[in-house]
Amino acid sequence: MDEFEMLIRAVPDFPQPGVVFRDVTPLLADAGAFARCIDALAEPWLGEGVRAVCGIESRGFIFGAALAQKLDAGFVPLRKPGKLPPPVVGIDYALEYGHDRLEVRSDALVRGERALLIDDVLATGGTLAAAQALLERLGVELVGAAVVIELEALAGRARWQGKAPLRALLRY
Amino acid sequence: MDEFEMLIRAVPDFPQPGVVFRDVTPLLADAGAFARCIDALAEPWLGEGVRAVCGIESRGFIFGAALAQKLDAGFVPLRKPGKLPPPVVGIDYALEYGHDRLEVRSDALVRGERALLIDDVLATGGTLAAAQALLERLGVELVGAAVVIELEALAGRARWQGKAPLRALLRY
Repeated sequence: MDEFEMLIRAVPDFPQPGVVFRDVTPLLADAGAFARCIDALAEPWLGEGVRAVCGIESRGFIFGAALAQKLDAGFVPLRKPGKLPPPVVGIDYALEYGHDRLEVRSDALVRGERALLIDDVLATGGTLAAAQALLERLGVELVGAAVVIELEALAGRARWQGKAPLRALLRY
Repeated sequence: MDEFEMLIRAVPDFPQPGVVFRDVTPLLADAGAFARCIDALAEPWLGEGVRAVCGIESRGFIFGAALAQKLDAGFVPLRKPGKLPPPVVGIDYALEYGHDRLEVRSDALVRGERALLIDDVLATGGTLAAAQALLERLGVELVGAAVVIELEALAGRARWQGKAPLRALLRY
């Protein structure tokens, strides 16, 4: 078990019965481990010319903002509906039960800009796939996606489209 | 008008009529300006021995995570209710209309640890005051608070208690 795994706590039955929640807050709270985690997340994308790191609300904001600084990139928040002032573009997507929506400022990215997506956890992949579709609608060049944790049993990776790499720091 | 002010957009009547929303997304999207903003936020606290940066959900996560990296500190998220797995401690507080609640992992900070609070905007000050009370209940040594924007007309500064400094990068 590596340093990062030791600092990610498994919480059974949260937020609902039968789910094992992966709690990254002990990792974030450890200054050295958090810095090394951002280094490790950044490493595959150094030299890729990433201009914008797009983080998904809200734990994606934590890793994404730090990663943007590390990559000398801007940070673009992808938010839940109604949080960003107009002009926004959004995408609705299905969840296991119900649906959700992601929005981004329509002028936050320019066509052809090299962007990297980031979120904390890849589970069923619905949110990441929606984010990918939203960014492609804006005409950005998606360099890839980074997640801290991939829950392999949920097969979210199958929903990631195209050739840009999807990289996970840890897999469960 | 300085570099940061030029990149903060005033959006009238958002999220409701009569409110002028200060949109920081253009500042975040500008890699150089975002980096200089984090430098400027960090500058007064360098050498203060900050061990934990506590960011308030969710724009406080963006500035807070980057600031934690800059200060070689850990990051501790203060979240809306139900988002953090147990064990948590929380505080209820009044808003202009209704009420809200902030929660933090009860083991995220140790007694006497030097912590810095951060949020994007200081408006009426209710959220920041609640965060201050919550952290003091955990026995941390609050070094101070940093906000990107202070809306002076709303007099939120009056609700900040004690001698630890509350520093704003920009005032409107």
